[in-house]
Amino acid sequence: MPLITFKPSGRTIEVPAGTELLRAARDAGIRIDSLCGGKGACGKCIVKIISGYADSKSLGKLSAVSVAEGYVLACRTKILESDITVEIPEQIGRSGGKFTDAAEDKTLVRQELFPERWEYDPLTVKWRVNVPQPRHEDGLSDLDRLTRQLQFEWGKKDFLYPLSVIRVLADTLRAENGLVTATIIREKERYSVIRLEPGDTTVNHHGIAVDVGTTTVAVQLVSLHLAEIVGTKKDYNAQVECGLDVISRINYARKPGHLDELRRKVLDTINSLTRQICDDHNINPETISDAVISGNTTMVHLLLGLNPEYIRIEPYTPTLLKTPYLSAEEVGIAINPNSWVYISPSVGSYVGGDITAGFLCTDLAADNEEISLFIDIGTNGEIVIGNNNFMMTCACSAGPAFEGGGIDCGMRAAIGAIEKVAVEPVTGICKYWTIGNVKPMGICGSGMISLLADLLLTGWIDAAGKFTRKKKSEAIKVDGRNASYIMVSAKQSATGREITISESDIENIIRAKAAIYSACALMLNQVGMSFNDLSSIYIAGGFGRFLDLEKAMIIGLIPDLPMEKFHYIGNSSLTGSYMILISREFRKKQLDLCKKMTYIELNTEPGYMNQYTGAMFLPHTNQKLFPTVKTKLDQMRQKQR
Amino acid sequence: MPLITFKPSGRTIEVPAGTELLRAARDAGIRIDSLCGGKGACGKCIVKIISGYADSKSLGKLSAVSVAEGYVLACRTKILESDITVEIPEQIGRSGGKFTDAAEDKTLVRQELFPERWEYDPLTVKWRVNVPQPRHEDGLSDLDRLTRQLQFEWGKKDFLYPLSVIRVLADTLRAENGLVTATIIREKERYSVIRLEPGDTTVNHHGIAVDVGTTTVAVQLVSLHLAEIVGTKKDYNAQVECGLDVISRINYARKPGHLDELRRKVLDTINSLTRQICDDHNINPETISDAVISGNTTMVHLLLGLNPEYIRIEPYTPTLLKTPYLSAEEVGIAINPNSWVYISPSVGSYVGGDITAGFLCTDLAADNEEISLFIDIGTNGEIVIGNNNFMMTCACSAGPAFEGGGIDCGMRAAIGAIEKVAVEPVTGICKYWTIGNVKPMGICGSGMISLLADLLLTGWIDAAGKFTRKKKSEAIKVDGRNASYIMVSAKQSATGREITISESDIENIIRAKAAIYSACALMLNQVGMSFNDLSSIYIAGGFGRFLDLEKAMIIGLIPDLPMEKFHYIGNSSLTGSYMILISREFRKKQLDLCKKMTYIELNTEPGYMNQYTGAMFLPHTNQKLFPTVKTKLDQMRQKQR
Repeated sequence: MPLITFKPSGRTIEVPAGTELLRAARDAGIRIDSLCGGKGACGKCIVKIISGYADSKSLGKLSAVSVAEGYVLACRTKILESDITVEIPEQIGRSGGKFTDAAEDKTLVRQELFPERWEYDPLTVKWRVNVPQPRHEDGLSDLDRLTRQLQFEWGKKDFLYPLSVIRVLADTLRAENGLVTATIIREKERYSVIRLEPGDTTVNHHGIAVDVGTTTVAVQLVSLHLAEIVGTKKDYNAQVECGLDVISRINYARKPGHLDELRRKVLDTINSLTRQICDDHNINPETISDAVISGNTTMVHLLLGLNPEYIRIEPYTPTLLKTPYLSAEEVGIAINPNSWVYISPSVGSYVGGDITAGFLCTDLAADNEEISLFIDIGTNGEIVIGNNNFMMTCACSAGPAFEGGGIDCGMRAAIGAIEKVAVEPVTGICKYWTIGNVKPMGICGSGMISLLADLLLTGWIDAAGKFTRKKKSEAIKVDGRNASYIMVSAKQSATGREITISESDIENIIRAKAAIYSACALMLNQVGMSFNDLSSIYIAGGFGRFLDLEKAMIIGLIPDLPMEKFHYIGNSSLTGSYMILISREFRKKQLDLCKKMTYIELNTEPGYMNQYTGAMFLPHTNQKLFPTVKTKLDQMRQKQR
Repeated sequence: MPLITFKPSGRTIEVPAGTELLRAARDAGIRIDSLCGGKGACGKCIVKIISGYADSKSLGKLSAVSVAEGYVLACRTKILESDITVEIPEQIGRSGGKFTDAAEDKTLVRQELFPERWEYDPLTVKWRVNVPQPRHEDGLSDLDRLTRQLQFEWGKKDFLYPLSVIRVLADTLRAENGLVTATIIREKERYSVIRLEPGDTTVNHHGIAVDVGTTTVAVQLVSLHLAEIVGTKKDYNAQVECGLDVISRINYARKPGHLDELRRKVLDTINSLTRQICDDHNINPETISDAVISGNTTMVHLLLGLNPEYIRIEPYTPTLLKTPYLSAEEVGIAINPNSWVYISPSVGSYVGGDITAGFLCTDLAADNEEISLFIDIGTNGEIVIGNNNFMMTCACSAGPAFEGGGIDCGMRAAIGAIEKVAVEPVTGICKYWTIGNVKPMGICGSGMISLLADLLLTGWIDAAGKFTRKKKSEAIKVDGRNASYIMVSAKQSATGREITISESDIENIIRAKAAIYSACALMLNQVGMSFNDLSSIYIAGGFGRFLDLEKAMIIGLIPDLPMEKFHYIGNSSLTGSYMILISREFRKKQLDLCKKMTYIELNTEPGYMNQYTGAMFLPHTNQKLFPTVKTKLDQMRQKQR
């Protein structure tokens, strides 16, 4: 079989002739991004063959010059009988900026967002129990004695036991004179004993809250004994190399074996993050006896190994919205295998459990009549509006711009990302701040918002997002009809390449913000309201620690309202999952709220395109909608004169 | 590593020096009986080392001459660095007589034993359902539509689905325009859908009834669609080579890894029998969606991998009596993995599910006041007495004599077993009949009973079971204080060895029958009754097709009562399991009856030893208890004068 060698890592793999090069790279453990799911469309999987030959169909997507130099698309290249050596170019996406999880431990879940009153009441409890010694006269088995004692203390419930617990029963009951600790899942009249340990082990009781995003996965380990967060870790969803957005993933899943590959990839990410936190804190993963997972509908399907195809095609019907309780073993989560996994319910194919978990920490879950708006800005944008009487929700294809996708130098809010920018009005040159205070690698969503707002305020771009040709800046390169802005020189950059933003990048960002703003406006329209009727606006998303709401308003991502109405709530999907983990009342609340929700399909709503087109300017075609911003822009222009 | 070669099979295995020879043989797949569980006590694992040398501690159990000839006990022999060749002598137990399962198909379950009225009502049903096509407007997932349709047809139950069913849901619903067949476990308000198939597959619906005996395992495949028996197969429990009775098995299980070995062995037997029936009838084992298993308490523990140690030691406390429902996957039964396995409940450590299944097909389960006695004669003897007001039960250590154990030429009721004997009064030579009409290999329980009764009636043995020295027969060899009886010459025998029964064999048989008779007598005593108060006596056991009750009465195994009161009900554990499989009412009946039962420990009852000693004669010390037998004996004696 031909031998494939990958540079710079030097890793090698033997594969049968006919294997796709992208496949071979993945089998060798080499990460190559592919936004389109391997359809030869995105051009991200470009690699260079530096020795040997292969059968490549890359011409057309790549220039003749590139092809002549040995560049190919890995997804369009089949390995022949020849050994080959392949070079994987250094790229922003690929270098996989590390997340600053340590710093975020305390900010990822914001207890200040919890409702005023709630009761600590996890589904699973650890219960110390003294089981009487066996006696011949009573004719009771070990299981009878344990059940009787539990029923004596908990009332006449049905106690259920998996075989793995029954297997250790005899010896466990005899290890410390009948003193044992039972881990119990409490479900109405059925209590399941999912673990039995000798002695008193009530302090070793843990659960995990998991946010499965299309791009990132966050795991939070919680002590259910102390109701305290033990640790939080974030990483890229290992599926990202199979496509950046949900549609690419669904396409990728269509080939044989790919659905299972996607399932294993996201499980690997979750299990590896969990193991890392356990290792850091010297915790046995078997003592983790509850898991709450929230993710969008497609992520849930891929996690469970469900065919996602029908989410993509008319009439967009998922296999499930509400997932029944499943065991950790069935799902493949590496904790106590008898644990139950709770998966936050979806409302529709494009409004998932990340949203229904997320709005738990907003006023939407409060029992009052004030109207709230909840916006989750991720690879997709999801919007919920309502109060204690009604709730409406929709999804809009914002595109992955704010997550760094489709933007040449875009990246996630990870170490090395430019998260804030200040443009010098006269020279047009910017100062920037990076996450982790390191050399910049790219720009993340909050950086883009900051940059666009400043470029607009300083007059270097116009309302259409085009660079001015009236004045010159050394930061702006004009090349005929195209122009781009240099934030960081090649010398200052961590990648050795300039970090720039082009007019087409800006257009992508405008599309994203327009999609979100217009979806909100349309939803309000539908219920005969305007932005002024809102008492609170919650913004969630993977912007990291920081989102400058004032700048978001300047570019027209969010409406022009008093600042105190806005709340940036970060990863609300994780916060909501944590809430569900520590109190059953939030599970109930979540299911109740889901029943109240009306799901609107934007694509079929007349008027959406008008709204969208109107929002394709900075901040908006109709400046009356943004009076504060207009005043600021006017002031700045006057100052510059 | 030394190479071990086994003759006559020629199989070889390499094992580390220090390995026990018995272990090596088993790892090589060579079957060697060991009644004592490998403690060097029973002497059954004798083998001959014909080349090479090993470290054997067999002297003492084996004669010096035998040891000099190369004979060793495999369980007392450790392999050294030397390659060795080992000869496995042909033995009765080892040749593993085949069971006549084809002929028994119809007799193993006796529908005439069922109560007059009962309703066909299996736990699991297959249900054809037309699920509406997906529509965008209703906002329903695939799972929602299926559940709604099922709830529409079955009422407001909770429908549960394992992940494996959810995984095939989307494609199955779309395969035949929404026509699917669901396999549903019906449990009060919770219905579990354990399989989903496209189209109408209601005819492919099966269950298995399993009797797990200490010595044999019987599996019966039942069409739950037609309520018909598809096929029945029996085989030795593969555990027999680890000890013949439950105590040996419990001892065997004490060494590391042995409990799991025993578990796998019995699972192999069950699964292989199931697979054979499925192959014979071209049935997919995945369409088997229910299993009912009955066995004694120790067998249930070993099947589930539960430490049986505490059954053996004071205060004889099993891990469980009533087993909760477990999935086939958890237990390891190779049918639809989501199926539930129902295990018949035990009443005590030595009265198990074989008994509580067995008495379902007796008048003990009928709603009347007549007193019935139920005797199950297996490796242990279990006895139940009662009516619709009370039930008492006990176990007695009959020993494995009637199953062929502890009897030099004893064997199971399998092909080649002498099952009936007629002794010529003058010559003392016998005629015999074998199962399958083949050359005899040994004698089974019914043959022993037949032989002893005839020898007693013809005066060749006395009431103590000793051969007469007053007259001579060429069939009787007297050697000082010992005598033995030759049933079959070496020439006529299938094994090339004489088939004989010695006085010590007879003593073992008398011990067995005395244990059973005296236990029955004691139980009756305890409730102030005598045998005459009984209206029915049910005898169950592995005697094959045939048990001559008249002869059983002559030797005093069963009391002297009118013949019409006796019912030989064969493998009632299997019949009961079948009943439970086809109707939920029998599950309920079984659990209700279990609650009514009082378990008596014979060993702690005063008076048992007296009863036992009295029964150590043929038919009994007190001949007044056996008036009919006494008359017969007197008549025969007169005739012979």
